[in-house]
Amino acid sequence: MDNLINVADFEQAAAEKLDAGVRGYFAGGAGDEVTLGENVAAWRRWRLRPRMLAGHAQWRTATEVLGAEVSMPILVAPVAYQRLVDEEGEIGMAQATAEAGTVMCLSTLATTRPSEVAAAVPEGRRWFQLYCFKDEMVTRALMDEAIDSGFEALVVTVDAPRGGKRERDLRTGFRIPEGLGVPSVEAALGSERAVTIEETFGLMEPALSWTHLEELASDTALPILVKGVLTAEDAALAVEHGAAGIVVSNHGGRQLDCVQATADVLSEAVDAVEGRGAVLVDGGIRRGTDVAIALALGADAVLVGRPVLWGLAAGGAEGARRVLELLRGELELALSLCGCASPAELTRAHVIRAPAPVYSA
Amino acid sequence: MDNLINVADFEQAAAEKLDAGVRGYFAGGAGDEVTLGENVAAWRRWRLRPRMLAGHAQWRTATEVLGAEVSMPILVAPVAYQRLVDEEGEIGMAQATAEAGTVMCLSTLATTRPSEVAAAVPEGRRWFQLYCFKDEMVTRALMDEAIDSGFEALVVTVDAPRGGKRERDLRTGFRIPEGLGVPSVEAALGSERAVTIEETFGLMEPALSWTHLEELASDTALPILVKGVLTAEDAALAVEHGAAGIVVSNHGGRQLDCVQATADVLSEAVDAVEGRGAVLVDGGIRRGTDVAIALALGADAVLVGRPVLWGLAAGGAEGARRVLELLRGELELALSLCGCASPAELTRAHVIRAPAPVYSA
Amino acid sequence: MDNLINVADFEQAAAEKLDAGVRGYFAGGAGDEVTLGENVAAWRRWRLRPRMLAGHAQWRTATEVLGAEVSMPILVAPVAYQRLVDEEGEIGMAQATAEAGTVMCLSTLATTRPSEVAAAVPEGRRWFQLYCFKDEMVTRALMDEAIDSGFEALVVTVDAPRGGKRERDLRTGFRIPEGLGVPSVEAALGSERAVTIEETFGLMEPALSWTHLEELASDTALPILVKGVLTAEDAALAVEHGAAGIVVSNHGGRQLDCVQATADVLSEAVDAVEGRGAVLVDGGIRRGTDVAIALALGADAVLVGRPVLWGLAAGGAEGARRVLELLRGELELALSLCGCASPAELTRAHVIRAPAPVYSA
Amino acid sequence: MDNLINVADFEQAAAEKLDAGVRGYFAGGAGDEVTLGENVAAWRRWRLRPRMLAGHAQWRTATEVLGAEVSMPILVAPVAYQRLVDEEGEIGMAQATAEAGTVMCLSTLATTRPSEVAAAVPEGRRWFQLYCFKDEMVTRALMDEAIDSGFEALVVTVDAPRGGKRERDLRTGFRIPEGLGVPSVEAALGSERAVTIEETFGLMEPALSWTHLEELASDTALPILVKGVLTAEDAALAVEHGAAGIVVSNHGGRQLDCVQATADVLSEAVDAVEGRGAVLVDGGIRRGTDVAIALALGADAVLVGRPVLWGLAAGGAEGARRVLELLRGELELALSLCGCASPAELTRAHVIRAPAPVYSA
Repeated sequence: MDNLINVADFEQAAAEKLDAGVRGYFAGGAGDEVTLGENVAAWRRWRLRPRMLAGHAQWRTATEVLGAEVSMPILVAPVAYQRLVDEEGEIGMAQATAEAGTVMCLSTLATTRPSEVAAAVPEGRRWFQLYCFKDEMVTRALMDEAIDSGFEALVVTVDAPRGGKRERDLRTGFRIPEGLGVPSVEAALGSERAVTIEETFGLMEPALSWTHLEELASDTALPILVKGVLTAEDAALAVEHGAAGIVVSNHGGRQLDCVQATADVLSEAVDAVEGRGAVLVDGGIRRGTDVAIALALGADAVLVGRPVLWGLAAGGAEGARRVLELLRGELELALSLCGCASPAELTRAHVIRAPAPVYSA
Repeated sequence: MDNLINVADFEQAAAEKLDAGVRGYFAGGAGDEVTLGENVAAWRRWRLRPRMLAGHAQWRTATEVLGAEVSMPILVAPVAYQRLVDEEGEIGMAQATAEAGTVMCLSTLATTRPSEVAAAVPEGRRWFQLYCFKDEMVTRALMDEAIDSGFEALVVTVDAPRGGKRERDLRTGFRIPEGLGVPSVEAALGSERAVTIEETFGLMEPALSWTHLEELASDTALPILVKGVLTAEDAALAVEHGAAGIVVSNHGGRQLDCVQATADVLSEAVDAVEGRGAVLVDGGIRRGTDVAIALALGADAVLVGRPVLWGLAAGGAEGARRVLELLRGELELALSLCGCASPAELTRAHVIRAPAPVYSA
Repeated sequence: MDNLINVADFEQAAAEKLDAGVRGYFAGGAGDEVTLGENVAAWRRWRLRPRMLAGHAQWRTATEVLGAEVSMPILVAPVAYQRLVDEEGEIGMAQATAEAGTVMCLSTLATTRPSEVAAAVPEGRRWFQLYCFKDEMVTRALMDEAIDSGFEALVVTVDAPRGGKRERDLRTGFRIPEGLGVPSVEAALGSERAVTIEETFGLMEPALSWTHLEELASDTALPILVKGVLTAEDAALAVEHGAAGIVVSNHGGRQLDCVQATADVLSEAVDAVEGRGAVLVDGGIRRGTDVAIALALGADAVLVGRPVLWGLAAGGAEGARRVLELLRGELELALSLCGCASPAELTRAHVIRAPAPVYSA
Repeated sequence: MDNLINVADFEQAAAEKLDAGVRGYFAGGAGDEVTLGENVAAWRRWRLRPRMLAGHAQWRTATEVLGAEVSMPILVAPVAYQRLVDEEGEIGMAQATAEAGTVMCLSTLATTRPSEVAAAVPEGRRWFQLYCFKDEMVTRALMDEAIDSGFEALVVTVDAPRGGKRERDLRTGFRIPEGLGVPSVEAALGSERAVTIEETFGLMEPALSWTHLEELASDTALPILVKGVLTAEDAALAVEHGAAGIVVSNHGGRQLDCVQATADVLSEAVDAVEGRGAVLVDGGIRRGTDVAIALALGADAVLVGRPVLWGLAAGGAEGARRVLELLRGELELALSLCGCASPAELTRAHVIRAPAPVYSA
């Protein structure tokens, strides 16, 4: 693993390890994957404006998110079914995240229960990604387990009233293996057998509304982040309906194709929130400079999903840890070369739109 | 056919079935095919701005066009000589359209007469695409057959005072087979032998004017759509001269190359019509997200030509039906993920121009 | 030759006939050939806005340039050393031009004298492209031969105080063959031996000024066109110093690389001339739609060089004639499909900038 | 070497001579090399607007930089470890520069001491590129040697508080050979053994500030240029803190990836300096037209690094000299074809942004 020097290397290493079905499931997006590609490309449509002679000898990547310190403004995004790529699964990811000093966001669709992850890696910090169910008792049971297990925030996914059209899965015929259930949901349902992903989606509430969100927020002391915001309008509505913040996200390009890249939405979301909550963003982050651009545009932090999953696939918990450390190192370097002693010093004056290319023979 | 999961797959399957001449005739465009390619690309120059937490549990694609309900705002465009790709020809297409619950627009250059199509698929809804002839009695005879056969609207093609320069046909040497006449025209002429396409074009009126259109509109109770509008100016003139609406169209890129893509014209046409008529659009629609973008820009509906023709070529009526159902499904998914319960809820706030790409090494 | 259906086909056919040195000499441009490629690409950065139902049954390409009628607003640009591609050389080109009913501009560097071309093709219309020499008597002798031979205008090239860096020639080692002199210059000099191109350029006046132009204009009754204008500033200066018009030209991308494409300069030149003279343009015209766009932007006519040279190379005078007829036909078709009965009806409302492309996976 | 006709040819020739490690060290950039590529591409995003009939018969490339005349506004940028590509190293480069009549900027990380270069090529003109060290005595010793050796200016690099992430070196495993020390630093330190590059960077001051710069400027009579400016803000601060000028530079794309190309920064830097100092620029200059564009945008001169290094690698001092002469010739040609008798005549009216490209099939 020592010869893997950037996220692209880890992606390549993971691709060589995983079979086509699993690889397609995690790597793929919806439709023609326009948004999938755009997510990565869009960060490159900004250029950094570094400042010189700032007089700093040290640079810290540590910052605060939702009032608590993390070693870097790079968090681990919720990713379902992590045991598909490595037997350590979510527990390995939790170990890596804890060692890296940042926050892991555990998916409702994790292959390990929140309580188990907490027990295995008690020193880690965690948020819980929540899907809302038609039966509110199920939702409540999921929340309670997370709260009881010391999770510090709820990340409510709002962009999946239905699943996207993921054509790679249609072509490979990939299906989640029979034995791999959704233990958190099984526990919430009191089910004694594995629940399939199709069953799970069938139980979810498609008709979520801002009223639901407001009720959810008033039902728990934990801060709630609304994940899946892609417009200024919804960014404002989120903080006006009790959210502690938002995650600008298009579900990694996996839900609706041809929506905007998150890098293209971030600014308007930040402006709409007007400091009334945290603004996080995921999608397409592959470099420390991508993180620096997101911070300069006003994000409090970013989440990375596929990069750490490739790390987990390529080298288990240690692989995921290396990816996080690699990104942290790249961000620290970017801060230092931008003349910023800390993430908070990055401002919009540090970025500018890249010019369009022109004809060349 | 079960492994064909999107329109591109049907295009590929059709390409494998058809010989080069027929394939080129339907797939090709004018000149360097700049507009042909642009038609498809231009929908991708828009991005969707989906709204979350809309609170809908169901999504309907059904809508009204020209005052009558269709199962979806996706109609079947007029395409000439459909028997070239499948022996069922226009009757197969009519069956597919009827089963899909939408409207078929039959071409003057169809290989089946309007009355025959009506007799074969009486439950279907149909419009008639009309070319105007120098001899007004021929035009009248065509209209009368359509009216008598229960066609609900006339779609007058105005962008073909002359045929485009289609270089694929010049290269393959493709010609419409001798036996394949234009029965609607033959009937209108009282001809007992097959009339060739060259003869038919020779009989058409190249010098159509807005006065002609106004007279035509006053001569019939059926609504008239002007097909081939590519400017705000003509969009306004159309509704001011008796048209019930327009079809923004560049004839699938087959007439004049280097005209604008229809997706780039749609907004100005909608603005110019100012609600005084229906605005439809064709050209380059390949995905449900393309339809959603067209609706958001103000179209009442879209027409698809090549996609259903590839369906017909790949699998007869059932193939065409699947393409329609596939597009309907993709549109329903797009609506749901945009937070819209119906097509009418899509507005210009749901779309934004995509940014230009930038240099990457 | 019957299977050559567009200019690109003729280019390909010529490329197969010519050896690498000659091909490179005519096809190549300066430096990295950025401008060479841009000249062609830039016409494609405009889109046509065709108007419908204009009521025309006939379309004429004939127009007036400098007060005299031509069969089409497409003239033959000055191209040096035409006998390099075909033994008929400039006389073949003159025959083709005369048959096509348009104007040929004969180069000072032609391999046939003006008087010989006039004698061989007396029915043709011709302009003379003039390089100015340090010795004014040489310039005067060149002008006199052209005037005496019935040439109707002088086209003064102003963009070549020095020759461009043409790297294809440096790589192929191409040199004009010994025997191929510059007979017009030889006659003007009274030289009895062939004069090389290097000698000829050595005799030219590099320090031409607007005063020179004004003197030249006052010395002759023939209209003078200034060829090589690439700015609004120079366009205005030209008509203010006695020119009857300008040719917006970058010498086919052969002089200074990275100057603007002529399609990108045309509008500002037209605006600057303010109707005080004719505005012609050359560079990158390959299609009738390119001509239509140039006319819509305000050009009185275009000149084509390489297209007719490929015609001459591929099939002698008949080849060049076919290229001209092919372009005329494409222009007539473009006029008809734009709703214009004649070139003069094309206006800026018929064109719009093409949008930039966007990311696609 | 006679068949090398442009900088790209020299780059190719050098690539064939150098082993992968050395080639990667000099050719490579930071991260994904976005900025490395952009540096070259960005000059091509401008187009020249040449003026005609300017009346000049001669064109001079000579100009003044920092009050002294050079044969051309093209200087030799500081490049470390030049003996890696040719045994003549910096002395060969100094000979080439002197013969070309321009200025060489010697790197602190040169493999030859300033005094040795001065002794070997006494007729040359030289500036010294200075890294500041934590121990001010070291910095002072470096400065003194340069001053005593007749260097005419100090170029203080400010964009390297830390080294960039150069992935080519990580992949090839390239390291500076043991024996190749940094003699200027060794002398300043009084070290008797070779000092490695890692040691040298460890001794440098990362926390440089504008106060440092001001002190440095007041400590020496030599003019100081601040190299590494990428914003208008820093351009203004530089001249306000005692600098005689700036070098707009991103360290050849080797420090922080995704910063702007220098061609995209130049205008704002020129505007911010407001004539209060010299503005130089490096990065991506490969053609005389690139130089002309930089001058038109307001640069006093450009520096070239890789081009002359490829020259040195391909053919020693003579190779470097040829590259300089080649660029001078191209610039002279560009001046003449722009209608400018000297570099000073180029203004912003001579350039315009290139349009974005558009779709082509």
